[in-house]
Amino acid sequence: MTTTQEPLAGCEHAIDELRECGRIFWERGWSLGTSSNYSVVAGRDPLELIITASGKDKGRLQPHEFVRIDGQGRPTSAGQPKSSAETLLHTVVASELPGVGCVLHTHSVWGTLLSDLYADQGAIEIEGYEMLKGLDGVPTHEHTERVEIFDNTQDIPKLAAEVQSRLVAADPLTHGFLIRKHGLYTWGASVAEARRHIEIYEFLFECVARRRML
Amino acid sequence: MTTTQEPLAGCEHAIDELRECGRIFWERGWSLGTSSNYSVVAGRDPLELIITASGKDKGRLQPHEFVRIDGQGRPTSAGQPKSSAETLLHTVVASELPGVGCVLHTHSVWGTLLSDLYADQGAIEIEGYEMLKGLDGVPTHEHTERVEIFDNTQDIPKLAAEVQSRLVAADPLTHGFLIRKHGLYTWGASVAEARRHIEIYEFLFECVARRRML
Amino acid sequence: MTTTQEPLAGCEHAIDELRECGRIFWERGWSLGTSSNYSVVAGRDPLELIITASGKDKGRLQPHEFVRIDGQGRPTSAGQPKSSAETLLHTVVASELPGVGCVLHTHSVWGTLLSDLYADQGAIEIEGYEMLKGLDGVPTHEHTERVEIFDNTQDIPKLAAEVQSRLVAADPLTHGFLIRKHGLYTWGASVAEARRHIEIYEFLFECVARRRML
Amino acid sequence: MTTTQEPLAGCEHAIDELRECGRIFWERGWSLGTSSNYSVVAGRDPLELIITASGKDKGRLQPHEFVRIDGQGRPTSAGQPKSSAETLLHTVVASELPGVGCVLHTHSVWGTLLSDLYADQGAIEIEGYEMLKGLDGVPTHEHTERVEIFDNTQDIPKLAAEVQSRLVAADPLTHGFLIRKHGLYTWGASVAEARRHIEIYEFLFECVARRRML
Repeated sequence: MTTTQEPLAGCEHAIDELRECGRIFWERGWSLGTSSNYSVVAGRDPLELIITASGKDKGRLQPHEFVRIDGQGRPTSAGQPKSSAETLLHTVVASELPGVGCVLHTHSVWGTLLSDLYADQGAIEIEGYEMLKGLDGVPTHEHTERVEIFDNTQDIPKLAAEVQSRLVAADPLTHGFLIRKHGLYTWGASVAEARRHIEIYEFLFECVARRRML
Repeated sequence: MTTTQEPLAGCEHAIDELRECGRIFWERGWSLGTSSNYSVVAGRDPLELIITASGKDKGRLQPHEFVRIDGQGRPTSAGQPKSSAETLLHTVVASELPGVGCVLHTHSVWGTLLSDLYADQGAIEIEGYEMLKGLDGVPTHEHTERVEIFDNTQDIPKLAAEVQSRLVAADPLTHGFLIRKHGLYTWGASVAEARRHIEIYEFLFECVARRRML
Repeated sequence: MTTTQEPLAGCEHAIDELRECGRIFWERGWSLGTSSNYSVVAGRDPLELIITASGKDKGRLQPHEFVRIDGQGRPTSAGQPKSSAETLLHTVVASELPGVGCVLHTHSVWGTLLSDLYADQGAIEIEGYEMLKGLDGVPTHEHTERVEIFDNTQDIPKLAAEVQSRLVAADPLTHGFLIRKHGLYTWGASVAEARRHIEIYEFLFECVARRRML
Repeated sequence: MTTTQEPLAGCEHAIDELRECGRIFWERGWSLGTSSNYSVVAGRDPLELIITASGKDKGRLQPHEFVRIDGQGRPTSAGQPKSSAETLLHTVVASELPGVGCVLHTHSVWGTLLSDLYADQGAIEIEGYEMLKGLDGVPTHEHTERVEIFDNTQDIPKLAAEVQSRLVAADPLTHGFLIRKHGLYTWGASVAEARRHIEIYEFLFECVARRRML
């Protein structure tokens, strides 16, 4: 018997991890007001993701508020809830970057502000902080993390293509990017690693922003 | 048998939702010190609201700390606790705007500061933030949200009339307004939507205020 | 049989309320690092207070970490823990001001900063905020709340005498005072009212301080 | 029978205290993204420490995510997880300073910013705050707390030697130090005292930083 719940079968643990991310990010003010979306890679051949359904309260995500989608961002079966409008940004990251198991997108005050302040430079460069070592593969604080900034748009296919060409092609070892006055995308091999990247970036964004005021 | 509890019969779920709003807003510092008041529409023909009783700690609202009022802000029966001094602002919003099921009023630091900083302009205009899409009916970040600012007064009937004429008449699709050095009013079809609007506005207020400092 | 617990008999409820204040204030960062002290009036003829023992973690106060003291700040019986070094500030407030049932002293960042910034004026005057109405007996935002600032000292009897003469004699309807680079004292008829005053003052202090930066 | 758990036997209480520190510091944003490390002195003759394993989420430390090390920072037995890269900073503090029972290292925004702003002076001096009395052995606010700042490096043995010669030799009664754009080290006779020192320093760092903006 086919039910709308079936597409999520076998992914209960990953879904619980994403629900916990939602609780944590909402508490910290990084996913207020049904903003943000989160996904995990559920299969590789072919690519399938489990992604948050559109418009849900991230502080209290329910187990059924997720959608299984294919590599083109389409639901793998009928009867599922609508996935986020930004689904294609998840699939482009998951399909083009090596070893991605989870993609997290959040909306914080500091990230939003920096994405605007540094928009003209096209990126923020963060360097010299010990906290950079929390990003996968960064062994020293003597590292310059370049976080690309993309203009915001409601044309997600166009934005996904731009992310693909400008970001992924340029630096396959990048950890995240910002969309102007919108928010942060980051990822990791696991939910835990992607969540760690969110925490690292948020810490660094706050440092960079407050540093300007001091 | 008539008891003081009876006016709230059948509204237990809505009351629990408002109590949860109180806990959340108090934790975030948006409803400290018995400030704020919240209401739900309990009936439409004639209009009746359930509204928080005056002077209660919003972080720990009890089920009986609510009042059923009519469209003129009067208790529907004797023996109920006193409703908020600002009751008429709730009834004017609920009666004049289409589809309002819940009205929430909070006192945050950022909202209070912006209501003072922009008082001379009579409104704050917020534009270009993705987070604006969290407001009902806003499909794109290319939106200018105009939040009217009213001078504070203890003459609530006068303020209610002003809100009615200046705000409601001018823009029936508005989402909220500020009272100078006082706080925010917003609303929604449901408690969840009104709470989402609070979170969206608070996020945007913090962005606007911090942006000025950077 | 005399035990060290006996002096607290009959005050279990008040002690639980103060313990909860400690949890709340520690969580908000207003009582970090064993700072702060809290008291309730346990008797009036003669005056007796229950006050936090010296040097305890306010985030996790235990029921026995309180002392019963007399109007001169001395323990009412031997074998009790040492009371706070600032005990005399509690007794002067409780004995000289009308209707005080609880005295709360906290150390917040904003209060500490304002106590330094406005030290030369001898007081902060806060006016025009709706939130002022959360202070007992203030019916309108058109109120100027004068919060006296005292120089810090380790000579508590001298400070207590100064508070008595300058503050209490000058304005028996005052709600609190600051000690420079130290913290806030406020009070109320009940623990709930004194806690409300803490929340109101902290909100207002943050508004005043952030307003200067905008 | 030898197991990897055995090295931690008898230290369950201390480990639980460190785990609780992790939860508290992570919630306050002082130990995000697997940053930070914590230790307790488990033996004195010879010196042995229990220290957090490398790369663990401090908000949810598990009982087995600790390592028993000797005075040279080496695990006391095979099969234990890897200890923090900064292990030698813990051993130098524990071996050279009198009465140290616990060493805590955190990464906060304010500490990170001050460590950079005051790097040229080589130290921050904090004075006149009542909160200074929360540091062990400081009886009055009329105290100048000098917090040395060290340049950051991945050469931990070199940094440990510098800490030993410049800090410990110069002032055996010091309470902590900062590493530039990295974080804070502090300590105490017990976990409770070291945690109190973290809270005191963080409060003071926030005061010093915000004071510059006002």
